[in-house]
Amino acid sequence: MMKQGMLVVVSGPSGTGKGTVCEKLLAETPELAYSISATTRAPRAGEVDGKNYYFLTREAFEQKIQEGDFLEYANVYGNYYGTPLGKIQERRAAGEDVLLEIDTQGAMNVMQRCPDGLFIFLLPPSLAELEQRIRGRQSETEESLLRRLGNAKKEIAIGLKYKYVVVNDQVELAVARIKSILTAEHCRVDMNQDLFEVLEDEKRK
Amino acid sequence: MMKQGMLVVVSGPSGTGKGTVCEKLLAETPELAYSISATTRAPRAGEVDGKNYYFLTREAFEQKIQEGDFLEYANVYGNYYGTPLGKIQERRAAGEDVLLEIDTQGAMNVMQRCPDGLFIFLLPPSLAELEQRIRGRQSETEESLLRRLGNAKKEIAIGLKYKYVVVNDQVELAVARIKSILTAEHCRVDMNQDLFEVLEDEKRK
Repeated sequence: MMKQGMLVVVSGPSGTGKGTVCEKLLAETPELAYSISATTRAPRAGEVDGKNYYFLTREAFEQKIQEGDFLEYANVYGNYYGTPLGKIQERRAAGEDVLLEIDTQGAMNVMQRCPDGLFIFLLPPSLAELEQRIRGRQSETEESLLRRLGNAKKEIAIGLKYKYVVVNDQVELAVARIKSILTAEHCRVDMNQDLFEVLEDEKRK
Repeated sequence: MMKQGMLVVVSGPSGTGKGTVCEKLLAETPELAYSISATTRAPRAGEVDGKNYYFLTREAFEQKIQEGDFLEYANVYGNYYGTPLGKIQERRAAGEDVLLEIDTQGAMNVMQRCPDGLFIFLLPPSLAELEQRIRGRQSETEESLLRRLGNAKKEIAIGLKYKYVVVNDQVELAVARIKSILTAEHCRVDMNQDLFEVLEDEKRK
């Protein structure tokens, strides 16, 4: 039987650097598939439909909700964000690990529907650093910035529900830690029952 | 409070290559302390007392058993092997990870006394390979070789009780996997409560 791939959920407070870390992780890990989210928010500069997100109209998004097409979805700051379920199932069934980059609210929903997921929480090295990063993004008004920062503080406590925590002090280090976590999880005995069966079979010959 | 170091137990059937893997792992991981075992067996060529083993007389070993000086000990093929407890406790208390290379019988005893240990099972790529390796050692008579091989097959089933399994197909790869496991374990949320406390404290300022 083909081993099912893992659902790797990388999540963390707004401004922790999820996007940068996941981009580098994917570049260095070609065997890792990426789950592209759907959203109704407008594309930021440089974002490509079907690559960064599936950009949907509100109507199209709500249609898909009705049809049960999302592993999870949420309304964040007035925009829908959701994770299309079908592609993830296909790829995991084919033995591929699938990376899901998602906010903490979404991750909590995924945790309920997919408790076998591998939940990795990305933490900023400090709150001061987090504020600096959110300010640096510059696509924010002061009001939405303060709201994001306040939420980020609340979100940090959510990390205690994850299995792993990775401090994003340097992108390269954070990526290396996540790669180590993936390697380690693939070495778990309960993921490798087949190794023992093969050796047992050989014994009986 | 200082975080306690991990007790890293690398174990596996006779002839799996534990020694070679652990030697390379230690060379590449200077922050990992090594738990030197005590034994009553004669040193093999090149083995140094206080480095490879503490070589003890039977009388001295039995004295230490009486004094409760061993985390575990066992009689294997007529010789005692044991793990001195005191040094391990000191180093873990100082926040150091301690590596223990041990046979499967010993590991089972450690698992009972130290269930918080990190148990890594080293597996030969195949039984044919295992036999070749045991034969290659050449310090064995045919009788002790067959006994070792028979035991090794039985021991493989014990691996199902460990947390991680690493196939020793190539020493470099096996070592890299173990290093990834150590990194991952250090990222476990339940090993990093302090990270969340620091950020919480910062929030209250």
